Amino acid sequence: MSVAEVGEFGLIERVTARLAHGPATLLGPGDDAAVIAAPDARVTASTDVLVEGRHFRRDWSSARDVGHRAAAANLADIVAMGASPTALLVALCMPADLESRWAEELADGLAAEAATVGASVVGGDMSASPTLTIAVTALGDLGGRAPVVRSGARAGDVVALAGRTGHAAAGLTVLSRGFRTPRLLVEAYRRPEVPYPAGPEAARLGATSMIDVSDGLLADLGHVAKASGVGIDLRRDAFDVPRQMGDAAQALGVDPYSWILAGGDDHALAATFPQSVVLPPTWRPVGRVVAGLGVTVDGQPYVGPAGWDHFR
Amino acid sequence: MSVAEVGEFGLIERVTARLAHGPATLLGPGDDAAVIAAPDARVTASTDVLVEGRHFRRDWSSARDVGHRAAAANLADIVAMGASPTALLVALCMPADLESRWAEELADGLAAEAATVGASVVGGDMSASPTLTIAVTALGDLGGRAPVVRSGARAGDVVALAGRTGHAAAGLTVLSRGFRTPRLLVEAYRRPEVPYPAGPEAARLGATSMIDVSDGLLADLGHVAKASGVGIDLRRDAFDVPRQMGDAAQALGVDPYSWILAGGDDHALAATFPQSVVLPPTWRPVGRVVAGLGVTVDGQPYVGPAGWDHFR
Repeated sequence: MSVAEVGEFGLIERVTARLAHGPATLLGPGDDAAVIAAPDARVTASTDVLVEGRHFRRDWSSARDVGHRAAAANLADIVAMGASPTALLVALCMPADLESRWAEELADGLAAEAATVGASVVGGDMSASPTLTIAVTALGDLGGRAPVVRSGARAGDVVALAGRTGHAAAGLTVLSRGFRTPRLLVEAYRRPEVPYPAGPEAARLGATSMIDVSDGLLADLGHVAKASGVGIDLRRDAFDVPRQMGDAAQALGVDPYSWILAGGDDHALAATFPQSVVLPPTWRPVGRVVAGLGVTVDGQPYVGPAGWDHFR
Repeated sequence: MSVAEVGEFGLIERVTARLAHGPATLLGPGDDAAVIAAPDARVTASTDVLVEGRHFRRDWSSARDVGHRAAAANLADIVAMGASPTALLVALCMPADLESRWAEELADGLAAEAATVGASVVGGDMSASPTLTIAVTALGDLGGRAPVVRSGARAGDVVALAGRTGHAAAGLTVLSRGFRTPRLLVEAYRRPEVPYPAGPEAARLGATSMIDVSDGLLADLGHVAKASGVGIDLRRDAFDVPRQMGDAAQALGVDPYSWILAGGDDHALAATFPQSVVLPPTWRPVGRVVAGLGVTVDGQPYVGPAGWDHFR
């Protein structure tokens, strides 16, 4: 049945019936607004939008995959401040002939991804639209800590990375060339594995800056460098090329470092730490904060595509 | 210049430069997430989306008007819980050839409407899309009060209304028939006048239930009746037909009560109060909560269009 046949209120009932209440949900879906716990009297909030044809394709990703990815993109922004996610709100715009099942399975994916961090979907809105669009707002709790912002990096700090880069970009390239394997890469594109606990962990360790890697490592560290008024130098040998990525790169004629250094969508976390901090295994040193401006690799400007502008 | 020519980061800079920080903004736009004060350790949150061609037309409303309306729709949901709005987050999807000025003036409208209640735009996201779409999330502060939900109406309660109904629906009908006047109605459609202070006021007065009238008075009171397990009976003579609305109705061959009872988009607030409450002039009694089910007018079912389903 299409969403038009089920109707707005019918679809809202079907979707909300599939949602669990998280521990922070004081009042869940069904009223004019939800009420969420904000234990330290502050709330961290971020919004990200996915547009069909631009951020996802229904023939490349299942509804559940898209739900996981839409939630992950937002939850990653919350943990990148050092906060713990509490809630998601979802605005879903869809063609009237979309199968109701697609919207329901999207909700399942959103709810499942949120549940991995103890958060839940607390509200949203639906509308008909020619363009399938999912706008998600995530809320989080800083647990009494100061937010870890982009502007705190200082020359001498260690640059460290939690999670993977390049996998999702490689998966997207594989799919766009008409292949469905290697699964490692394609699955990384469909459902990013975000190192959620590493965000609050970095805050507790005393990270001086942090960012969610969504535009590509060079571009996102560029935001940190600009906001902090510093330069960042990465060591290329800090990045291994996994075998399956290397094979795919060779088969497709791509430099795998263009995925690793410039690919977004894995939602790794990049942070800077004072040299004195002993980093746990979650956080892998990949470079240094230096005096200067911009991001370099082994002291040289990186030549190649460096990021993503959503209007080009 | 188009948004594609300005670029994503250029447009973000232009837009954020136009935004003021509200008193609740602890960390504003420019990082992975914003941080907003939530003084009583809870946050009220709601999301609403506007889609071009469905919720607005660029030839009927200026960018600034659309910004006011998008903000108002969300801020009304917050005050309908009895909360005071603190912040907005905005996901904006737009065709690459949209004039950058349109997006900037939209932001001006959003910021100006938010400022009327002391709130501000604290974050958001932008993407290219074939369909111009604005998804807004509003946050609010309950000030230590319990949220006023839809399910608390009790038989014997007084049903009262703050703000206008029918004006925006009449304005939309006028515009859709190719007219630009009467201004009272057309302006009501373009920029709703939401009775924001009436929401927290109702909570302080002891309202037993409250809702933002966005789908139409009968449909929205239907949500209250269903959630509360009661009936609601309205008095038709509690609703005056303003002269300009009556003239327009006659000229267009429309029953003005279809606007007043079934038109949304003015974002009036409807609430129920125990009989013992002395209502201030903001809150106009319009009916009674009764035993039973559903909404009636002078004891009879209302025959006519009763609301709005966004997929039909």
